[in-house]
Amino acid sequence: MSKKLKTGIIGLGRIGQIHLSNLLHHIPNAEVIAASDVSASARELAIQAGVPVVTADAGEVIHHPGVEAVIICAPTPQHVSLTIAAAQAKKHVFCEKPLDVHIPAIQSAQRAVAENGVKLMLGFNRRFDPNFSRIASLVKDKSIGAPQILRITSRDPAPPPLEYVKVSGGIFLDMSIHDFDMARFITGSEVNEVYVKGDALIDPRIREYHDIDTAVIVLTFENGAIGVIDNSRKAVYGYDQRLEIFGSAGMAKAENNTPDNVTLYNGENVQSDLPLYFFLERYEKAYQNCMRSFVDSVLNDTPSPVDAKDGLMATAMGIAAGISLKENRPVKMEEIVKL
Amino acid sequence: MSKKLKTGIIGLGRIGQIHLSNLLHHIPNAEVIAASDVSASARELAIQAGVPVVTADAGEVIHHPGVEAVIICAPTPQHVSLTIAAAQAKKHVFCEKPLDVHIPAIQSAQRAVAENGVKLMLGFNRRFDPNFSRIASLVKDKSIGAPQILRITSRDPAPPPLEYVKVSGGIFLDMSIHDFDMARFITGSEVNEVYVKGDALIDPRIREYHDIDTAVIVLTFENGAIGVIDNSRKAVYGYDQRLEIFGSAGMAKAENNTPDNVTLYNGENVQSDLPLYFFLERYEKAYQNCMRSFVDSVLNDTPSPVDAKDGLMATAMGIAAGISLKENRPVKMEEIVKL
Amino acid sequence: MSKKLKTGIIGLGRIGQIHLSNLLHHIPNAEVIAASDVSASARELAIQAGVPVVTADAGEVIHHPGVEAVIICAPTPQHVSLTIAAAQAKKHVFCEKPLDVHIPAIQSAQRAVAENGVKLMLGFNRRFDPNFSRIASLVKDKSIGAPQILRITSRDPAPPPLEYVKVSGGIFLDMSIHDFDMARFITGSEVNEVYVKGDALIDPRIREYHDIDTAVIVLTFENGAIGVIDNSRKAVYGYDQRLEIFGSAGMAKAENNTPDNVTLYNGENVQSDLPLYFFLERYEKAYQNCMRSFVDSVLNDTPSPVDAKDGLMATAMGIAAGISLKENRPVKMEEIVKL
Amino acid sequence: MSKKLKTGIIGLGRIGQIHLSNLLHHIPNAEVIAASDVSASARELAIQAGVPVVTADAGEVIHHPGVEAVIICAPTPQHVSLTIAAAQAKKHVFCEKPLDVHIPAIQSAQRAVAENGVKLMLGFNRRFDPNFSRIASLVKDKSIGAPQILRITSRDPAPPPLEYVKVSGGIFLDMSIHDFDMARFITGSEVNEVYVKGDALIDPRIREYHDIDTAVIVLTFENGAIGVIDNSRKAVYGYDQRLEIFGSAGMAKAENNTPDNVTLYNGENVQSDLPLYFFLERYEKAYQNCMRSFVDSVLNDTPSPVDAKDGLMATAMGIAAGISLKENRPVKMEEIVKL
Repeated sequence: MSKKLKTGIIGLGRIGQIHLSNLLHHIPNAEVIAASDVSASARELAIQAGVPVVTADAGEVIHHPGVEAVIICAPTPQHVSLTIAAAQAKKHVFCEKPLDVHIPAIQSAQRAVAENGVKLMLGFNRRFDPNFSRIASLVKDKSIGAPQILRITSRDPAPPPLEYVKVSGGIFLDMSIHDFDMARFITGSEVNEVYVKGDALIDPRIREYHDIDTAVIVLTFENGAIGVIDNSRKAVYGYDQRLEIFGSAGMAKAENNTPDNVTLYNGENVQSDLPLYFFLERYEKAYQNCMRSFVDSVLNDTPSPVDAKDGLMATAMGIAAGISLKENRPVKMEEIVKL
Repeated sequence: MSKKLKTGIIGLGRIGQIHLSNLLHHIPNAEVIAASDVSASARELAIQAGVPVVTADAGEVIHHPGVEAVIICAPTPQHVSLTIAAAQAKKHVFCEKPLDVHIPAIQSAQRAVAENGVKLMLGFNRRFDPNFSRIASLVKDKSIGAPQILRITSRDPAPPPLEYVKVSGGIFLDMSIHDFDMARFITGSEVNEVYVKGDALIDPRIREYHDIDTAVIVLTFENGAIGVIDNSRKAVYGYDQRLEIFGSAGMAKAENNTPDNVTLYNGENVQSDLPLYFFLERYEKAYQNCMRSFVDSVLNDTPSPVDAKDGLMATAMGIAAGISLKENRPVKMEEIVKL
Repeated sequence: MSKKLKTGIIGLGRIGQIHLSNLLHHIPNAEVIAASDVSASARELAIQAGVPVVTADAGEVIHHPGVEAVIICAPTPQHVSLTIAAAQAKKHVFCEKPLDVHIPAIQSAQRAVAENGVKLMLGFNRRFDPNFSRIASLVKDKSIGAPQILRITSRDPAPPPLEYVKVSGGIFLDMSIHDFDMARFITGSEVNEVYVKGDALIDPRIREYHDIDTAVIVLTFENGAIGVIDNSRKAVYGYDQRLEIFGSAGMAKAENNTPDNVTLYNGENVQSDLPLYFFLERYEKAYQNCMRSFVDSVLNDTPSPVDAKDGLMATAMGIAAGISLKENRPVKMEEIVKL
Repeated sequence: MSKKLKTGIIGLGRIGQIHLSNLLHHIPNAEVIAASDVSASARELAIQAGVPVVTADAGEVIHHPGVEAVIICAPTPQHVSLTIAAAQAKKHVFCEKPLDVHIPAIQSAQRAVAENGVKLMLGFNRRFDPNFSRIASLVKDKSIGAPQILRITSRDPAPPPLEYVKVSGGIFLDMSIHDFDMARFITGSEVNEVYVKGDALIDPRIREYHDIDTAVIVLTFENGAIGVIDNSRKAVYGYDQRLEIFGSAGMAKAENNTPDNVTLYNGENVQSDLPLYFFLERYEKAYQNCMRSFVDSVLNDTPSPVDAKDGLMATAMGIAAGISLKENRPVKMEEIVKL
């Protein structure tokens, strides 16, 4: 392995551009030597940024002899096949989440990675947010004792277009999936059972797609803790990303981040700023830390910080949530996936 | 009706003494002209405080010709019979919660009150806490739009003695009942369905009494909102009483109150004070406002701010929660009570 | 000495009524057996409250044989003569601040108290505010190390009537005097030098009374620390009472108190409540703790928590501030008072 | 003018590297085509970063025909001569502060810039901090009405080495100078008078260099406002950078920034994180915004956001502060500089 990881990026949409920029500017021990996208204007961006090989063909990135690790930012339906192709070419893989929305597909990627001895990391970037990673370390060092109650609030500033909802797999697989991963990450425990109560309170048209926009999700963990997630597609005050974990020896909570720490006092009230608007602003550091963590794990040959099983379990929880909502009953995880 | 309400107090335990002190010192348009308790030392306190008639016999308080309103602070099993006796004596009634843990008993008190044309107010004091009453008014004036998600955190600093658990009716009827009332109060809506996940995570011995000490409760409201309550019998950092309501036009939340607003910065971290220790400190103002509100409603002949139906519904929700926990399924409120 | 301190109150204006109510309702080891005021309506209030002896004659209170301690709430010009009269009658004295605005007068009261072996406590109630007393104890226990910089912000919600300014002795003796006392109390050190910069920025008419409404005051302490007070007669957002002390091992600061801990998030910003409106609300607990402390010090024969020297120094600092403003130069305290 | 500003950097120490990195990675409409430093290892960094021309000779950067703007990060004594040389070569100049510690020298740079029709911007980066720039805009749009009291707290986490103090020009010219500029920036008004109280409370050895480490500075503004700055060389809890402005219609204040928004509640207290450690962390965004603002002002030919007069006045205030400390008297700015 070289001292600088040679990467190739597949897909230069919004998230691909973020990874490209972070690899170029914030991660000194990485290089981007190839990039692909089907769109010419996206490719132009990579050329401007000085990427040596820019192509429309993902295969060219994967099979470029200099590429040691592939960053997959293509649309979700291509994640598994690209992961398998990269693994077979003996390239390490960083793949955006979800790996897939079908469990057997995820498992086939998992096998390919194992058989070819490469690393696979999934882009659950929120684990690398300074707030949430600090909470995780407080849990790990027993600052709150044994975890008993987990509370996650995760609300978007505005619903996605209805067209997106049609293909996204629904709120549990495109939005709550982050919170499912966070729940496992923070507690360090697997989930036994999922119960959901939800409705289309913001835009009733979403019901036509058999989806909802408001959800409360109860999780039961193997270690005995109980968790609750509340999701909304539309918080008028912006992106609301808070978390609290309560245990036998204390409680830790993360509040939202704001653009500044200014307060205005006038004759009416005290005013301060809304949370940072959406994920690009809020998780800017998280994206950097996440990619840095992938590069380090490959260069140092340490275990992938977020592996295929993490992707499998988050997706399985999303599937369980869908059944729970439909049947209005708690669903055991063992109904969905055997480990 | 006189310009000062003449009251009699039955029961001079901890809560009875709070009401006595508030009536004497903080509510200028009330008098305490009689008080009863079975304990001589409790009676001595009332004598010292200058109450004219102090007796061991509750009936004497109820039937004292000067007494216009009876404050019932006796043990829960006596609430209904004392309420009925007072109503039949044409006395207005303020009764500590719960009115009873059996629905038919509550309904008999409700009938007695109606038939005798007296007022009945239940001591759900938290409605009168400055934080929660301000949130209620923000909801009422549509500052947050249509309510969609309600979150209540309600955790005690330390579990009660096991002997208390034996007779209290369990966590849902002695502790969560406050939160059930708060849920209806804040949303202004009835509850359709209750789902509970809970366990004995703090002290396993509580299981012998078929009770738990940690609970997450999901509520579905008639107006479409979804609520979640989390309860713990033991927060090592003190009494944790927070509430948040999220709606189509915004969100309002109440943080804990603290003994002071001092922060200490040292070489390690920034330190501030824990929440006020327990309900006596935290709800000091709420108790005063609550009793003042009762006195005012009687003197001005306005509707009771917290009536028998409020007691009925909170108890019914407690019963539903017990069934949900036992059977691990959502329970419809119509299984418990027909309105 | 009886187990309950028998007090008499002279002056039943706003502040006298606060002390009366606290003595009656919040301090179980005190009684009020006499009270005087020149106004009949003020006397009526004391009669209603059940004070046994109510009179227009302050001398009657002082010389009532049952009275052990006199609470002086009469206008400032009478403070010294009443204090001397009470001391000569061997009565302990609680006197509202300032004791006087002339140093020799203060010293004559000081002598009378010493010669007659009675206690004198001055009503610098802010020392007993939960925020400020906690900061004082953090300084005392060396949590911040050696004090280096003290910052006091003290701003009123609205200026007093111009007629009051005419007789009050000016901003330094009617308003900053509290902050001067706080500065000595928090640092535990005497002041060497005072420098003031100020102006009439709110209402220029105040200049006709040779007064100002906005001031920044620099204090140099014997222990080397430097302090700064900022005063304004008009903060449109309410009563602003904050304090910060910075030292070699840390920093402690007290923020304002608010009526509730509720925050409202809407599409515009995050809103919270203004500080408690004025001193009656903000210092409610401080007044109770202050009088309780006087009663305890008399009953237990412990030193007065705020003595004549405290009054002398605060007044002397006010005089120094006036000279500094007029001559635009730092003024040494030894120019004003020899100790 | 090209669409991308072609810059050359003189001096690649800590601050020069920050500007280099920001120009390369965060400011798309700028290029770095030349850089110089006397140290070979510093030059190596620029070569690694891909700067086309890297030299030991500052003159080569200034006279490089492609360079349109020179970024001067050399030691302070060279600022004026390099600025004049660049101006004469018709290059725009961004210069680190202070421009110089002698007023005539500053004025000669000012003249050179004016005569040659180039822009000069000084690196008062804190003006571009999100907190402080938001406060400035609240003042500008009259959200707080007419400014009356300004408070700046500016404390470093640790004192510089004594060798640095020897050459820095002292606390007022190396540290307070930022706060002097901030005072003018926030109030939008010139200063009339300066008064300082200060001492060596942290390390008495600093007195040998005729310097201090703790200061309280009172400023009187032309618009009538009064300001106070408190400075310390050593806050054990980290870099303390707060500001508050109080006016006729309200108050705005900026609190410190922290690495995360996590709070830990345990059985002892509530703990949160210290402020960001020092200026590199705290002013990361400010440095980016500052350089972006320079590039934009040159490309769009708009006035320099921080010009020579700003440098002149900040230095003059530092000189006034030195005299005030030495002579213990308020010093009029007109004693120092005529405008």
